[in-house]
Amino acid sequence: MAEFLRNTWYMIAWEQELGGDAMLSRRVMGNRILVFRRSSGTIAALRDRCPHRFARLSDGTRELDHIVCPYHGLTFDGSGACVRSPYPGVIPPNAHVDTYPAVAKHTIIWVWLGEPHLADEAAIPDLSFLEQPGHRREYTPIKADYRLVIDNLMDLSHVECVHRRTFGGTGAFYKGEFSATDLYGVIQSLWLRKNVPAAETGVEGLADGTYDQWADTRWHPAATITIEFGLAAAGAPRAEGSPSRTMEIHAITPETDKTSHYFYTWPPMEGEPSALFGGVLPIEHEDLPIIESVQEQMADAEFWSLRPVVLQVDAAAVRVRRRLAKMIAAEQRTGSAIPSSKP
Amino acid sequence: MAEFLRNTWYMIAWEQELGGDAMLSRRVMGNRILVFRRSSGTIAALRDRCPHRFARLSDGTRELDHIVCPYHGLTFDGSGACVRSPYPGVIPPNAHVDTYPAVAKHTIIWVWLGEPHLADEAAIPDLSFLEQPGHRREYTPIKADYRLVIDNLMDLSHVECVHRRTFGGTGAFYKGEFSATDLYGVIQSLWLRKNVPAAETGVEGLADGTYDQWADTRWHPAATITIEFGLAAAGAPRAEGSPSRTMEIHAITPETDKTSHYFYTWPPMEGEPSALFGGVLPIEHEDLPIIESVQEQMADAEFWSLRPVVLQVDAAAVRVRRRLAKMIAAEQRTGSAIPSSKP
Amino acid sequence: MAEFLRNTWYMIAWEQELGGDAMLSRRVMGNRILVFRRSSGTIAALRDRCPHRFARLSDGTRELDHIVCPYHGLTFDGSGACVRSPYPGVIPPNAHVDTYPAVAKHTIIWVWLGEPHLADEAAIPDLSFLEQPGHRREYTPIKADYRLVIDNLMDLSHVECVHRRTFGGTGAFYKGEFSATDLYGVIQSLWLRKNVPAAETGVEGLADGTYDQWADTRWHPAATITIEFGLAAAGAPRAEGSPSRTMEIHAITPETDKTSHYFYTWPPMEGEPSALFGGVLPIEHEDLPIIESVQEQMADAEFWSLRPVVLQVDAAAVRVRRRLAKMIAAEQRTGSAIPSSKP
Repeated sequence: MAEFLRNTWYMIAWEQELGGDAMLSRRVMGNRILVFRRSSGTIAALRDRCPHRFARLSDGTRELDHIVCPYHGLTFDGSGACVRSPYPGVIPPNAHVDTYPAVAKHTIIWVWLGEPHLADEAAIPDLSFLEQPGHRREYTPIKADYRLVIDNLMDLSHVECVHRRTFGGTGAFYKGEFSATDLYGVIQSLWLRKNVPAAETGVEGLADGTYDQWADTRWHPAATITIEFGLAAAGAPRAEGSPSRTMEIHAITPETDKTSHYFYTWPPMEGEPSALFGGVLPIEHEDLPIIESVQEQMADAEFWSLRPVVLQVDAAAVRVRRRLAKMIAAEQRTGSAIPSSKP
Repeated sequence: MAEFLRNTWYMIAWEQELGGDAMLSRRVMGNRILVFRRSSGTIAALRDRCPHRFARLSDGTRELDHIVCPYHGLTFDGSGACVRSPYPGVIPPNAHVDTYPAVAKHTIIWVWLGEPHLADEAAIPDLSFLEQPGHRREYTPIKADYRLVIDNLMDLSHVECVHRRTFGGTGAFYKGEFSATDLYGVIQSLWLRKNVPAAETGVEGLADGTYDQWADTRWHPAATITIEFGLAAAGAPRAEGSPSRTMEIHAITPETDKTSHYFYTWPPMEGEPSALFGGVLPIEHEDLPIIESVQEQMADAEFWSLRPVVLQVDAAAVRVRRRLAKMIAAEQRTGSAIPSSKP
Repeated sequence: MAEFLRNTWYMIAWEQELGGDAMLSRRVMGNRILVFRRSSGTIAALRDRCPHRFARLSDGTRELDHIVCPYHGLTFDGSGACVRSPYPGVIPPNAHVDTYPAVAKHTIIWVWLGEPHLADEAAIPDLSFLEQPGHRREYTPIKADYRLVIDNLMDLSHVECVHRRTFGGTGAFYKGEFSATDLYGVIQSLWLRKNVPAAETGVEGLADGTYDQWADTRWHPAATITIEFGLAAAGAPRAEGSPSRTMEIHAITPETDKTSHYFYTWPPMEGEPSALFGGVLPIEHEDLPIIESVQEQMADAEFWSLRPVVLQVDAAAVRVRRRLAKMIAAEQRTGSAIPSSKP
């Protein structure tokens, strides 16, 4: 049985999915949520269930900023209020749909399923790099607990085996130094390889010489991950990194106990990513099958109850699991969140 | 978890489904039941499970009024007695299949899963209008608790939204007066619209003048519904209604907790009903998806535990739910039924 | 809920399935097991789950006698030891995969999921006849408790009904004498028909005269069955049986509570077995549907709780069920097996 942190922002969609009159419905932690963009530009997030006879509002019709239930025509605005009924008489005061704080930021739609008064937009991680043009935004459902996807990303050395047919298998990760650090609540998984000759960096067009190369993965609670790949002249500060530095995000939103929404980006590049790998999509065709099979192998067991072997490279993934468990326990004890940890 | 009334007649099939040597097997309240018509014309209803090794008798063969088990050839008659065994020796006395009272009436096959001695054919609602020629008899399975289908029918105003692309959407229900009445246990949901000009009735070929128009839905416990659509000269008694008066039935038989058998009729008409609506079947294509999505939204929750908003138009549906709950509770308390309520 | 005997050999595969570099993965009593043949010829059976992150080892690659995990490259040998890690540092001592005793015998791969120190190869039934050429080895999954398949085989008279369209329906079983015997733990179901005229034996090319004909089914705990069909001159000892004597095995290995692996053979014959029956496969097309429907009818009920009618021909099947239940109870009480019963 999965556990979820409630007082946190989860990605529910890409902003680009909410164009025009779109209504989008996704389940988050078991709750079906309808999101749409009001004509004012703000985002509305409602429970996708009419309080009258429980039809899905997203099966209804949108009339400007109102949603008309497909079953009996009760009409709700983005605040959840029933603003119209086709029937005579007073609208019952409990004809109200639950709503959730929601916001568009850094090209992403975020929702907050915890205590509304704790929802602070400033707690959304800084993903402003996504506002630069050229990022490709992807989505795939995955039949796995969200934490298995996080585990996968906090130890990028899986690339060597899982992606050996596409971009991995070069042994570069095995040659690097791995460290796991807690940056005021953001957990960092860093692979650093020093003094790499230009020809061995895998980056084209570099000046001769040696370089330091890194893969820097950071987990922001509860389920947003950024990865920076970069390199700089050997010994130089990372800030002087070359233009080949790239950033991507992976946001994993729990749909149910054992299924998740997996959003991720490709950094700006020429051509289709899949064209790079002979039609293979590394995430959908390589990560997904293995993560889903792990979920199936675990069945209903709690992760630690299976007494996994812990390697040194699991240090970051383990820190994330421990910190998440602590935050969830604190939340369940007090009903409020551990202050979101931003430096 | 659904609750069922046991001491009541449920429709299990149309009589026309039992022609010739037919054996028909359907589950009612979780019990797989085999029905067939004996050569004498009477109906046999047996548990569709051989008492020896639990094979489905309906997978066997019929020899006149006997059913031969497909697994080892034990043969049963319509009373459930094992009348033949291919093996030497005495047939064990417990080689007996459970049977259920069953009867053909008003073109329908009814079964009774409660106390056999309480089964009274007179408790079957009067549906003799079905014996007139021209009615079309339909069947569809539906993935929903039977009460959700009843709810849908007890408030016909859903027609305005759900069937707006076929026969609804005219606003006629919103212009009518709604009332809910208990007619000695039969619960009536009546929409009455008075003084409608002939041109606005939706009925062709009427003499000029104004009319009173009605839709009269009646629920007979546990799960049989009749609907009468009609009109009469304004102010005249309903009994003087025009020839456009039509009757239909909807019988919803619980198959399992969350699935039902939905039987219904179309009144006599020219041509195929679906031809009226461009190939759309209003029940299968419009009611079913929304009722099934409501079931899915409710998951395992009890209806009232979700604190539904109750509108004035829900009065009849709510009465049915309350009366059904009362009858079920009484039955479970005493083991016997509330006397079936016929005026 | 099914019960399983653990201290016993189960068939997991045909030897011929483990050719070359093959890795084969099947679930036995809920445990996914990977088997392969080492270059030395011995059989390795491992839990098909990496102890690190629970990936399926069978999705990985085989390098001689080592299995490389597809997720992070930990490498295990057939003893379950982690013999290589791509990462620097010491391999944690708990990086070990559970293993199971396994052996190839009589063309079959057997595994033992009980106490390893009790695994005695001598307890495997003598199936050396399978080493003669010409036997056809088959496999089909079946959605049923393994005991329902055993029931089916311990009463071969089902042939008359279930296989009446292929090789049964002649009434031969009804003309025979049936007996059930416990041969020191091996339970025998014997059909014996005496003094059959040559023309009525169903065997071609016999000398004139009368014959004794038998079908001798023997259950070896927990789930291996042999069937011998044969005939001899009337009154002669069975050992003087004609060349038409045939042997076959049926091994049914529990996969889960309600699914099994069904392995069986056809005796040496000319042409394809299915060609004999117009393309119908008697087991897959005739036994399977009925056994699976019985499983469905039983749902979660325990067999005896449904109070099955017991016929005289069920004597062998009932003995098997009783003996199995006793062995399972003894095993669960003491943690060790009833001594395997070989004469």
